[in-house]
Amino acid sequence: MHAIAVTEGGGDPVLIEKPRPEPAAGEALVRTLRVGVDGTDHEVIAGTHGGFPDGEDHLVLGHEAVGVVVEPNGTDLEEGDVVVPTVRRAPNGGNEFFARGEPDMAPEGQYHERGIVGDHGFMAEYFTSPAECLVEIPPELAEWGFLVEPISITEKAVEHAFASRSAFAWDPESALVLGNGSLGLLTVAALDDRFDRLYCLGRRYRPDPTIDIIESLGATYVNSEETAVPEVPEVHEAPDFVYEATGYAPHAFETIEALAPNGVGALLGVPSDWEFEVDGGALHREFVLHNKALVGSVNSGVGHFEAAADSLAAMEESFLDDLVTGVHGLDDFAPAFADDDTTIKTAVEFASYEER
Amino acid sequence: MHAIAVTEGGGDPVLIEKPRPEPAAGEALVRTLRVGVDGTDHEVIAGTHGGFPDGEDHLVLGHEAVGVVVEPNGTDLEEGDVVVPTVRRAPNGGNEFFARGEPDMAPEGQYHERGIVGDHGFMAEYFTSPAECLVEIPPELAEWGFLVEPISITEKAVEHAFASRSAFAWDPESALVLGNGSLGLLTVAALDDRFDRLYCLGRRYRPDPTIDIIESLGATYVNSEETAVPEVPEVHEAPDFVYEATGYAPHAFETIEALAPNGVGALLGVPSDWEFEVDGGALHREFVLHNKALVGSVNSGVGHFEAAADSLAAMEESFLDDLVTGVHGLDDFAPAFADDDTTIKTAVEFASYEER
Repeated sequence: MHAIAVTEGGGDPVLIEKPRPEPAAGEALVRTLRVGVDGTDHEVIAGTHGGFPDGEDHLVLGHEAVGVVVEPNGTDLEEGDVVVPTVRRAPNGGNEFFARGEPDMAPEGQYHERGIVGDHGFMAEYFTSPAECLVEIPPELAEWGFLVEPISITEKAVEHAFASRSAFAWDPESALVLGNGSLGLLTVAALDDRFDRLYCLGRRYRPDPTIDIIESLGATYVNSEETAVPEVPEVHEAPDFVYEATGYAPHAFETIEALAPNGVGALLGVPSDWEFEVDGGALHREFVLHNKALVGSVNSGVGHFEAAADSLAAMEESFLDDLVTGVHGLDDFAPAFADDDTTIKTAVEFASYEER
Repeated sequence: MHAIAVTEGGGDPVLIEKPRPEPAAGEALVRTLRVGVDGTDHEVIAGTHGGFPDGEDHLVLGHEAVGVVVEPNGTDLEEGDVVVPTVRRAPNGGNEFFARGEPDMAPEGQYHERGIVGDHGFMAEYFTSPAECLVEIPPELAEWGFLVEPISITEKAVEHAFASRSAFAWDPESALVLGNGSLGLLTVAALDDRFDRLYCLGRRYRPDPTIDIIESLGATYVNSEETAVPEVPEVHEAPDFVYEATGYAPHAFETIEALAPNGVGALLGVPSDWEFEVDGGALHREFVLHNKALVGSVNSGVGHFEAAADSLAAMEESFLDDLVTGVHGLDDFAPAFADDDTTIKTAVEFASYEER
């Protein structure tokens, strides 16, 4: 079968041939429909994140997949079920985090991530997966199912952030999403019914398709070149919730300053080392005197995938059409890995739901 | 009646005469037994924190009180009830935070704090208070009841920190308390039955009475001059929970580094402005990749006072004897405001429970 992989020499993703995998006991065989591309894939391709499976000279890419079960192999799944696979797998026979269904809470070294670190991804015509790592979604979502994984990242972050405010009556009204990439835009859409007022911050000037999307969602675009994060309270309002999806390191600290009293910031971006000066005294004091919180969040579990499928089902088709700027077949998949200002979200298509 | 106050000229607390207050409707009159002294009192005395009530030329000190109801005044309280007053009061007729019993979540400007900002404290022979701000405790705790307020600060911080970990299975084993002042020591005692292993960090060398107390509680003393916070994981272990009670600004940031994966830090100390360099990229990344959280916490509500009374009841008498280094009568109260290495926790006694 065909697969898209990065190889030892580095460079652009290439098409390779691999044998179709055989499902082991407890695993189902899945025909891949579409696999999304995100910033993590770009980091894996650049060699700055992740790692090959032990003893392998390549890594099959892709962790945002949707497919159709073709061989249930004795699991509870049925042939034809549309499924989205979770990303983390237990190395070396498992551990407590996987045992209780919380792979997203496993610390470094206690997980592989398919298509990212230690395990091949889903950018192949077929993949196998333990049935408990396959989340069934309605067939009508098959076309957009590759968005369930990124939305699940938001579902987890929001769950953890809201949990941190559960010891008191918290009725948040406004949220600020830092980042107008595909994850930021999906988050604005997912948060739409949870906040009265949404803001999304980016670094682009008009005309720009992401700004159009933000405004079509009823949110307010904040150009960070004109209004930096600490200025948002003065120019707009102090948000009750901040979602940091850029990985721009100063944002974590600026978030504390910008938040409304009793607010919480969820951190999802992954920055590199970067030393800079902060008014640590003022930030520390702001944390305390206004009961603020910062919550880091990575990855997601089955429950978050299920919540994400619900969120996806509630999103307007027109938004999804605008968000997904390209779905590319195997015969010309290179544009799926483009990373320019006209590309928002792309996917590689291995089969359509109709021709599965 | 006698009261201890700071006056406009500044300087040490002085004994003043004031009329005995008359309880308004809904208020009870309380005979004060003891009032504790803490770091906030020292800041109020130094003029670096808080403020006088509008139009007044003095502020009666004291926010850690215990007393006996002498005039229930038609409230649900009874004469002889031993009570601890909460600290915050609603200015200008109240607001939503007070209405729902969460004064600790009111932002700046929406509260007074008795003995600290905008409202006289409890260092007087009598005080009045709305009945709903008086928490009844068992008479056998009367002697130590002035410790309920500081313990309540810990109860709230722990509640909020644990809430932030409630979205997953969190089974913390170790805690690090930053600060060996009276709040740090009370916290070590209060956390005793919630963690398997406790560490308490200070800047003192042996012999020192606080180190003796830490060890008598079965906790491990960490001298920060020998083992800085970021080195605790290597020298001891990475704590699941960090409680920051020093207000030393770098601790907030070092906490992120020191925490075990999925851990949480509670920030309570209140630092001044202080700019310094941090590896913001590494800290931000550590937040995300290991699902860590930081939660600021200030003040406390009635539920936290009730939990604190339970915690106090469970503390060994010998610990309380060692912790409270001085209880001083009105005839010689100056030593209660001493702040040296032999003073751990002090109180001013206005009446004993027996002679109430």
